[in-house]
Amino acid sequence: MASRCTRAPALARLATRGPTAATRLGRVQPLPRSHARCLSTTRSGWLHQTAPRQAAQVKFSSETYPELKRDSRYSQLRQEHVAYFKGVLGSESAIIDGVTNDNAADDIEPFNADWMRKYRGHCKLVLKPGSTAEVSSILSYCNKHGLAVVPQGGNTGLVGGSVPVFDEIVINMSRMSQIIEFDQVSGTLVAEAGCILEVADQFLASKGYIFPLDLGAKGSCQIGGNLSTNAGGLRLLRYGSLHGTVLGIEAVLPDGTVVDDLGKLRKNNTGYDLKQLFIGAEGTLGIITKVSIQCPQRPKAQNVAFFGIESYEKAQQAFREAKGHLSEILSAFELMDGGSQELVRSVTKNKKPLEGDYPFYCLVETSGSNAEHDSEKLSAFLEDVMEKGIVADGTLAENETQIKALWAWREGITESLGHLGGTYKYDVSIPLAEMYQLVEDTRARVDAAGLLGETDEHPVRAVVGYGHMGDSNLHLNISTRRFDKRVEQCLEPFVYEWIQERQGSISAEHGLGLQKKKYIHYSRSETMVQLMRSVKSSFDPVSGHQLSLLHRYPYTSCAEVMITGIH
Amino acid sequence: MASRCTRAPALARLATRGPTAATRLGRVQPLPRSHARCLSTTRSGWLHQTAPRQAAQVKFSSETYPELKRDSRYSQLRQEHVAYFKGVLGSESAIIDGVTNDNAADDIEPFNADWMRKYRGHCKLVLKPGSTAEVSSILSYCNKHGLAVVPQGGNTGLVGGSVPVFDEIVINMSRMSQIIEFDQVSGTLVAEAGCILEVADQFLASKGYIFPLDLGAKGSCQIGGNLSTNAGGLRLLRYGSLHGTVLGIEAVLPDGTVVDDLGKLRKNNTGYDLKQLFIGAEGTLGIITKVSIQCPQRPKAQNVAFFGIESYEKAQQAFREAKGHLSEILSAFELMDGGSQELVRSVTKNKKPLEGDYPFYCLVETSGSNAEHDSEKLSAFLEDVMEKGIVADGTLAENETQIKALWAWREGITESLGHLGGTYKYDVSIPLAEMYQLVEDTRARVDAAGLLGETDEHPVRAVVGYGHMGDSNLHLNISTRRFDKRVEQCLEPFVYEWIQERQGSISAEHGLGLQKKKYIHYSRSETMVQLMRSVKSSFDPVSGHQLSLLHRYPYTSCAEVMITGIH
Repeated sequence: MASRCTRAPALARLATRGPTAATRLGRVQPLPRSHARCLSTTRSGWLHQTAPRQAAQVKFSSETYPELKRDSRYSQLRQEHVAYFKGVLGSESAIIDGVTNDNAADDIEPFNADWMRKYRGHCKLVLKPGSTAEVSSILSYCNKHGLAVVPQGGNTGLVGGSVPVFDEIVINMSRMSQIIEFDQVSGTLVAEAGCILEVADQFLASKGYIFPLDLGAKGSCQIGGNLSTNAGGLRLLRYGSLHGTVLGIEAVLPDGTVVDDLGKLRKNNTGYDLKQLFIGAEGTLGIITKVSIQCPQRPKAQNVAFFGIESYEKAQQAFREAKGHLSEILSAFELMDGGSQELVRSVTKNKKPLEGDYPFYCLVETSGSNAEHDSEKLSAFLEDVMEKGIVADGTLAENETQIKALWAWREGITESLGHLGGTYKYDVSIPLAEMYQLVEDTRARVDAAGLLGETDEHPVRAVVGYGHMGDSNLHLNISTRRFDKRVEQCLEPFVYEWIQERQGSISAEHGLGLQKKKYIHYSRSETMVQLMRSVKSSFDPVSGHQLSLLHRYPYTSCAEVMITGIH
Repeated sequence: MASRCTRAPALARLATRGPTAATRLGRVQPLPRSHARCLSTTRSGWLHQTAPRQAAQVKFSSETYPELKRDSRYSQLRQEHVAYFKGVLGSESAIIDGVTNDNAADDIEPFNADWMRKYRGHCKLVLKPGSTAEVSSILSYCNKHGLAVVPQGGNTGLVGGSVPVFDEIVINMSRMSQIIEFDQVSGTLVAEAGCILEVADQFLASKGYIFPLDLGAKGSCQIGGNLSTNAGGLRLLRYGSLHGTVLGIEAVLPDGTVVDDLGKLRKNNTGYDLKQLFIGAEGTLGIITKVSIQCPQRPKAQNVAFFGIESYEKAQQAFREAKGHLSEILSAFELMDGGSQELVRSVTKNKKPLEGDYPFYCLVETSGSNAEHDSEKLSAFLEDVMEKGIVADGTLAENETQIKALWAWREGITESLGHLGGTYKYDVSIPLAEMYQLVEDTRARVDAAGLLGETDEHPVRAVVGYGHMGDSNLHLNISTRRFDKRVEQCLEPFVYEWIQERQGSISAEHGLGLQKKKYIHYSRSETMVQLMRSVKSSFDPVSGHQLSLLHRYPYTSCAEVMITGIH
């Protein structure tokens, strides 16, 4: 990764400091490259089956979810519609036409299905507009003619939001990928929505800046989709939410109206801050076409430490101390329980970073502007938490390879679970004090039901938890040996109700999409949902008034997704 | 200020470094205490007359703005209404009743007028609810009976948003002032909306945390009003916008519906993030009753440097270098032009911090967790900008007194201008590259009109600019010797049109309120305004549909402000 810097020289000094720390350092066991930081944090959730099925095996969503019915008020695509779009887009390469061309099915397939091979639609027309005006023309026409659409960014979503269910037109944003301008003094970047996140970040790296969002899917996902999904990613702890960093957007409403809110100002208190609604709206309010965002200075140094910890209580203390000691340079504080690390070890056969076994492990990352200062802060933090007995054992990465190796023990969990069979995954947010309790309560419940055990007669191998402790974002994983209906019955609605009681979120960062739309009431009151419906109607008067926002076909997610209405 | 820390010892070393820096340091001239950091940044704008008029002299807004007419669809307050409110609120102290008690006028007056004595209403009833349920009962009743209301926080606003115009009922939030909970690990604070900002911050200080917003009005303003106004304040550069730090709100809609969006989660992607709309809505969507906010660690060290700079171009370079060198610890970068500093000097008679005269001055503040590290970063920055010739001269504060003294040269501008006569003030946001150009163009225009000069026949003494360079937030000030109609004609709409051409904001942080509502079109398109009207209708169906959001009586601002509707 371009953002990785060589370990700060000052870290070497640590070994000569506090006696406890001195004996613990420098024992990082590099993992195989394949387990290095290649997995996405955002991709770590929601996979009920891990091994990707081949395209031919992917069931249509309409078969997986037979309760979904195509709304007959939407028109059927006809040749005259296609002819109009060809006129608007001009270039042949901007359209994949399966309406008039029976041989286009293979070309359309990548736009019809998601990368997890869980969702697949029946789309016959893919449009790739090259400008805001073209997006506007398309939506205006669709709105008038009752044609359903699905906006699509990089199609890296996890909840079935960026692909069609039935025959919606895919509006793919990949041709609107330009960086429009960058202000070297203020750090303000303006780019088209289809710009790949990694392209934007590499451009910024050349200017000494960094995109304030990092995802494992950065090589494919698009910044318009990032806004629409509002995933927190790896940098939330340090750079905050997109609600704070996005300065402006340009978007096209369902009726083709262009909303120009592409401000480049950090302060603009002139009426409601409507752009905020598009962030996390999963494309249902309109298609984001341009983005303006405040980018911070790129850190010059990064360090990673890895701890063994005796209890969740002490993990919380360690987090508190990390904030105190590391403050402005703390960029990640990840929690992994002993079970999750044992699964990684059993699959990778790698030697664990620490010799003993602990119920909890933490990975702490710093990102700052001065390597020596950062190392000194990290050293002081380490000495403090070890002397206080908060941390039982710890190790520091001494170079880029070791940094990646330590991260692999966190990011390799998803892949390791995949090797062991099916996994029930929940990506949830819970107030920190009770966050891990969900794992314990779930484990106890599955155990009490006789489903959990080390032998083959038990369908559940392990109930483990890990996640972004700094963001109160837990990944609860139930690793199974085989499909057993009793497991799901044991888990749901138990998990959702547990979260609801603690005012947690059933979807911390992946959105609702097709997968979660029916569960919104576990995290939002009916009053809130009603207001959402009303807001939807404001932005999309035609379909918004006729269709129920959150219980209609197809409410989708993750890239920009929206259905235009009918007359 | 509690947040101030003693200057880092390492700064003393600076004098022995680079020869340029060595000769320049340690020449801070403390200002009199009265000029120390007592003035609010948010209070630095919009005063057309500086010397506060006495209450008796304050004109009613209905006289100042004769074009405003009371909407006859609102009911007149009657005794039966007051009886109902007394029943709801119980306590005598929760109501100031000027409807049935003719002697209450003096008690009501502080709630009727703003602190600048620019706006004054005809209110006869002040209600001080003590709970969300009471707020709900009040609003529900008002909505049913067509009674207009004005929510009021600390009443510290600058645009006439927190006081009535006619006979609106004031709903004052001061009794809802409790801190509800604080999570020591996550730093999440939950408090009632009427909690004074400084009370919240002092509570947080005792826990090692800091409120992520700082305003000069912190001793009076309330956090619910802070959210509704969305002023950026002094810490925006370091802690970001409230859109990023607020985790949740509880609010009561105009019809009395309680919106419970008081989440404590950093991540919750389940539908539209509606709480964002309340931030900066100036109370028009509902009354915020509770706030949940993410608070950062309190910095342990603060340092301040002060520079003389030869050009605006170099000031931008200095800002760029400051971001590079200081990165995560840069907490303020303030710009003052030579004219503004000369005005301060002429009023205070203090010796300027630097010997020479420069067209621009910058104040740079750092806030970090390690005093020694911060000082080293600041020293390296200073050496670099002086060696490169970006900065012509500079000085460093060596203790708390000197920090305050240097800040006084920035914050004393408003008070100094006040001593010199009337001032036309514009609080605007402009892309950084062109920010100061507005001052130059305005000065040239006023000069060309023959209005600017050193002698008494010229109504304009000086056109100066200063502000938060880190936020692209400029305070344009036109200091006048006397009222002259030609000056305003020369300035308006010129200033607004100039800002509009550069996609700037006519109100960077103060909001629209009564003062600016008619100018919104300079910063927002008709499409945006139309969407705002529609959103208003979603939250306030009764009055929202019947009254034009942004051109109705009374569209107010700054504390929480909202008018309930009529049948």
